[in-house]
Amino acid sequence: MIVMKGTTTRDHIVEAADRLFYQQGFEHTSFSDIADAVQISRGNFYYYFKSKDDILEAVIVQRLLDRQSLLERWDLDGDHPIDRIRSFINILIKNRADIKRYGCPIGTLSAELAKLNHTAEAGANELYTVFQTWLSRQFALLGRAGDADALALHLLARSQGVAALASAFHDDAFIAREVRQMEDWLLSVTNSRAQVAL
Amino acid sequence: MIVMKGTTTRDHIVEAADRLFYQQGFEHTSFSDIADAVQISRGNFYYYFKSKDDILEAVIVQRLLDRQSLLERWDLDGDHPIDRIRSFINILIKNRADIKRYGCPIGTLSAELAKLNHTAEAGANELYTVFQTWLSRQFALLGRAGDADALALHLLARSQGVAALASAFHDDAFIAREVRQMEDWLLSVTNSRAQVAL
Repeated sequence: MIVMKGTTTRDHIVEAADRLFYQQGFEHTSFSDIADAVQISRGNFYYYFKSKDDILEAVIVQRLLDRQSLLERWDLDGDHPIDRIRSFINILIKNRADIKRYGCPIGTLSAELAKLNHTAEAGANELYTVFQTWLSRQFALLGRAGDADALALHLLARSQGVAALASAFHDDAFIAREVRQMEDWLLSVTNSRAQVAL
Repeated sequence: MIVMKGTTTRDHIVEAADRLFYQQGFEHTSFSDIADAVQISRGNFYYYFKSKDDILEAVIVQRLLDRQSLLERWDLDGDHPIDRIRSFINILIKNRADIKRYGCPIGTLSAELAKLNHTAEAGANELYTVFQTWLSRQFALLGRAGDADALALHLLARSQGVAALASAFHDDAFIAREVRQMEDWLLSVTNSRAQVAL
């Protein structure tokens, strides 16, 4: 399947909604906000999406595709699973400008949909699962198949916690320190067995 | 100051708003939702609060008072700083039913207000600071004055991350495992010097 991002009106709508949901929250973003952002008539907009929930569904699908591509890139770029997991850890540094303002896009959407008791919550949580499954595979490659899922969830939780506090305190030194500690942790849990599995 | 919780109409309004903001989000909760929850007339309600923002301010003040009392109780109940920090870590177990449904009340409110660019964001983040300051004092008592703030923020982040994933995955075993690991971490960072300071 060829995904040409941002080339059709529908893609523009999904991109704008993705950004607005992230920056100002799903509940706070109106149908009109999105239509205004892409500068198309309400009628044209309506042709693609009948409700904000329809747009949310499309945003989640697009995010899943985007994250899958990201993980495939990390798989190609990192020869060693340690390097790949480092790519994950370092999103906190790379995206820190956005994270300090709006938190983690995955975590904050899941949290909001949980409170709204929204039917899309399961789909949004699937984004967590994509990262967990990928991290788990890396830990398995490092000889930790036995507790790969637990290690993956642990790292995901650490990363979520740092994003939450970074958004409250806007503290670059805190982010850098925590990233270093996660890298140290990564070496400590994989060092002893890394040679065996590779 | 004697705080008699829940004894006046105003207190009832603040309690109901606190619960609704936590369970369904600030943005999603209307003025009417709160009035309906306390079952008083709009006119009577209006006598106490003119806007949802006024109620939010009162909710944050009440949460600050509640958490201060909680920390004073932990100070009294725990003879040793290690025990007090354990009280903090174990909120994840104690409040896990709510956390699995709605996440952490502090973290999710801060995250929502950050996206809304709401003037109350700083007040909401003050709730984090209350815990950070208290945790930092405990680490200082354990002989880690030099990096007490960093240790406090680290533990706060770990706890936030667990709450975020607990709300997505509803996984009791995950919470229990992470709590054990936080307790192990606590002993590992304080063991060597705990005897010196106490």
